[in-house]
Amino acid sequence: MRAVDIIMNKRAGKELSREEIAFLINGYVAGEIPDYQVSAWAMAVFFQGMTAKETACLTDVMLKSGECIDLSGISGPFVDKHSTGGVGDKTSLILAPIAAALGLKDPMMSGRALGHTGGTLDKLEAIPGYRTNLSVDEFRTILIKDGFAMTGQTKEIVPADRLLYALRDVSGTVESIPLITASILSKKAAEGADALVLDVKFGSGAFMKDPSDGEKLARSLVDTGEAMGKKITALLTDMNEPLGNTMGNFLEVEECFDSLEGKGPADLMEVTLELAARMAVLGGKAKNAKEGRSLCEEILASGKPRQLFLDNINSQSGNAEQFLKLRGTFRSEYAADIKAAKTGYISGIDAWTIGHAGVTLGVGRNRKEDPVSPTAGIVFHKKGGDAVKTGDKIMTVWAKDEASLNAALPRIESAVGYSDNAPPPRTLILKEIVSK
Amino acid sequence: MRAVDIIMNKRAGKELSREEIAFLINGYVAGEIPDYQVSAWAMAVFFQGMTAKETACLTDVMLKSGECIDLSGISGPFVDKHSTGGVGDKTSLILAPIAAALGLKDPMMSGRALGHTGGTLDKLEAIPGYRTNLSVDEFRTILIKDGFAMTGQTKEIVPADRLLYALRDVSGTVESIPLITASILSKKAAEGADALVLDVKFGSGAFMKDPSDGEKLARSLVDTGEAMGKKITALLTDMNEPLGNTMGNFLEVEECFDSLEGKGPADLMEVTLELAARMAVLGGKAKNAKEGRSLCEEILASGKPRQLFLDNINSQSGNAEQFLKLRGTFRSEYAADIKAAKTGYISGIDAWTIGHAGVTLGVGRNRKEDPVSPTAGIVFHKKGGDAVKTGDKIMTVWAKDEASLNAALPRIESAVGYSDNAPPPRTLILKEIVSK
Repeated sequence: MRAVDIIMNKRAGKELSREEIAFLINGYVAGEIPDYQVSAWAMAVFFQGMTAKETACLTDVMLKSGECIDLSGISGPFVDKHSTGGVGDKTSLILAPIAAALGLKDPMMSGRALGHTGGTLDKLEAIPGYRTNLSVDEFRTILIKDGFAMTGQTKEIVPADRLLYALRDVSGTVESIPLITASILSKKAAEGADALVLDVKFGSGAFMKDPSDGEKLARSLVDTGEAMGKKITALLTDMNEPLGNTMGNFLEVEECFDSLEGKGPADLMEVTLELAARMAVLGGKAKNAKEGRSLCEEILASGKPRQLFLDNINSQSGNAEQFLKLRGTFRSEYAADIKAAKTGYISGIDAWTIGHAGVTLGVGRNRKEDPVSPTAGIVFHKKGGDAVKTGDKIMTVWAKDEASLNAALPRIESAVGYSDNAPPPRTLILKEIVSK
Repeated sequence: MRAVDIIMNKRAGKELSREEIAFLINGYVAGEIPDYQVSAWAMAVFFQGMTAKETACLTDVMLKSGECIDLSGISGPFVDKHSTGGVGDKTSLILAPIAAALGLKDPMMSGRALGHTGGTLDKLEAIPGYRTNLSVDEFRTILIKDGFAMTGQTKEIVPADRLLYALRDVSGTVESIPLITASILSKKAAEGADALVLDVKFGSGAFMKDPSDGEKLARSLVDTGEAMGKKITALLTDMNEPLGNTMGNFLEVEECFDSLEGKGPADLMEVTLELAARMAVLGGKAKNAKEGRSLCEEILASGKPRQLFLDNINSQSGNAEQFLKLRGTFRSEYAADIKAAKTGYISGIDAWTIGHAGVTLGVGRNRKEDPVSPTAGIVFHKKGGDAVKTGDKIMTVWAKDEASLNAALPRIESAVGYSDNAPPPRTLILKEIVSK
């Protein structure tokens, strides 16, 4: 078997066999097949796609390129959520303690901010002392104790994805539905979840701009997950505007804790509770989404998820008491307000522009090795649909330094759209995609 | 400017600017842009193509990546021929002395055998002592003296093509019309030809299997060459069956010399004289192809090209006298005959199969670093359209060693097709493509 023939078969639109996929991926991980063959293959996949069978094979081969987290001896059900990434997309930090309070186990393996999207690990690390590099033993211990544990991907977990993702990022081959599917599901299968709720985002702040592309990705994820024996549901949600009223690392942790205290903004709570409802259903705690949602609202009101959140901070080497003291004050000294340029309505705040401005502010990063700032970010005082008068405060912005603040402000201002009349309300959750 | 954005622009089907193309190609040659980005870009070009303007830019940027052969002070016109490659495709060695005898100068820079196609340099080097690694000074001196000179591509000439071609070969991105166009024309422009006749092959033994793909390539070559200020004509010729009655290194040189003595096989002479006629026209020696052909037939009959061929052997460090002695005898000791399996007609001898069997015999190579044998090859005693009786000798085969002979024979036998009735005659020259 030769790599070049596999590339040419895909180029010609042929379905690759499991042997061909395994030859390519395992050869790549072993360092026997060079980057330039894999990037050419990935571009051929971008154009020719993959069948459901190929996508499932690729996912499985990638999963088996490394180790899986051993959850044996821990009682489930293991239910997790994965988002395809957005701006102000912080639902994980609210969902995990809700799921745990319901009696589910959420073994959450997350990523870092890259490009315009935020990363759960960077947010958690904004809590002083919080560790996201847990050993498998620590991960198991905390999962048993708190019902959820939050960690980063280790070198041993799906090395094929680590290599492939880095290569796709620099070879213009990120936006391929089968490659995204295999990347997500191989990691989620490795962390040990039996059931998975997917938040597939569309719109300016998502990788898929168009709802129909988002739906195709959701369909691919659900079908491939199903083929791998997972219980799986996807919600197609709007990411044209940042989710919630904050974007930033500590700012978002704070907003999640506010949400656990019943003070979450409407858009964030709507998406979070609908996702939580599906976790409840997949974990066998509710018969349907409606019942699941009621259950999640009840458990939230009980205060139990709030306490689990604080417990987890202590479990992962943070200090819950210190966290509570930092609330409302842990901000960069470089701050400015964005004021309304017109009287009328805000038609929307563009998520893509805000996400990229966030990289300049210090919230995110363009290169994997760049550091992020815990205290940079944006609070949105107004959002799409709100009425404003000229000079009203729309946002407060914090940056890692003066220069970054000045560089980001014009971009942030440009993200605000105005209209004379109230814009039509956005549909946050467009569709649910379940296995056929 | 970032390479990944250029890749994504091409992926999206956008026309790249000259600046983008130069950034990518010059960065690649300088070692600043890695293989994996260029191979992904090449695959995107395979799917999205390039406009005429982009193809001309790419050719020009590649040409300027290195040095050009300095023909200043030598009187032209400089006319060359290029073939897209085939099996038994030996017309260069007959055309160059004919062109020289007409008073043209043919500065011929050729390649080596790779995959199933033969290479002019390997054939010439089958003449003991013959050198194809001429310095630019030697090339100039021989071109003035003999009217033609034959050399390989030096490191200084179009380094971008050397790098790109090697990368395309291993990344499944060879068969892209704009990339083939830029590869051919950048080299031909660097060798200094003012006018160029192209032999664009189609069929099983060609890179383009389908005549319509061959025509698209011919059109791209003619239009791009025209945009670069070259006089250019292409013939679309059939490569379903090996050209002439020999395939092999010394065997083909011998057949070329036979042709210069008026004993060439009909198919080889037809293609050669039609190409020669166009060289005569582009070089200003004839008003049209018909007149050019008569002129070439006359000059061939004069014996002048035959003498120039022998002179060139001596000029390039071979020994013409020794060459004449080797005629008919310089063969490997490992030989076998292929006999007709049926009585009837030969419907055809498949060029692709013969070309690949040639690699096994030692005529060609799969990897650039492999040696080739001067004395391996095949003589075709019968070809498509010939009547045969069971047991008639169809071919004689010579291999570099016993094992290679045994390995190649079944494959060679499988290349022969039989039919009960005489097959329809093949049209060797399908079309002429000239600038619009």
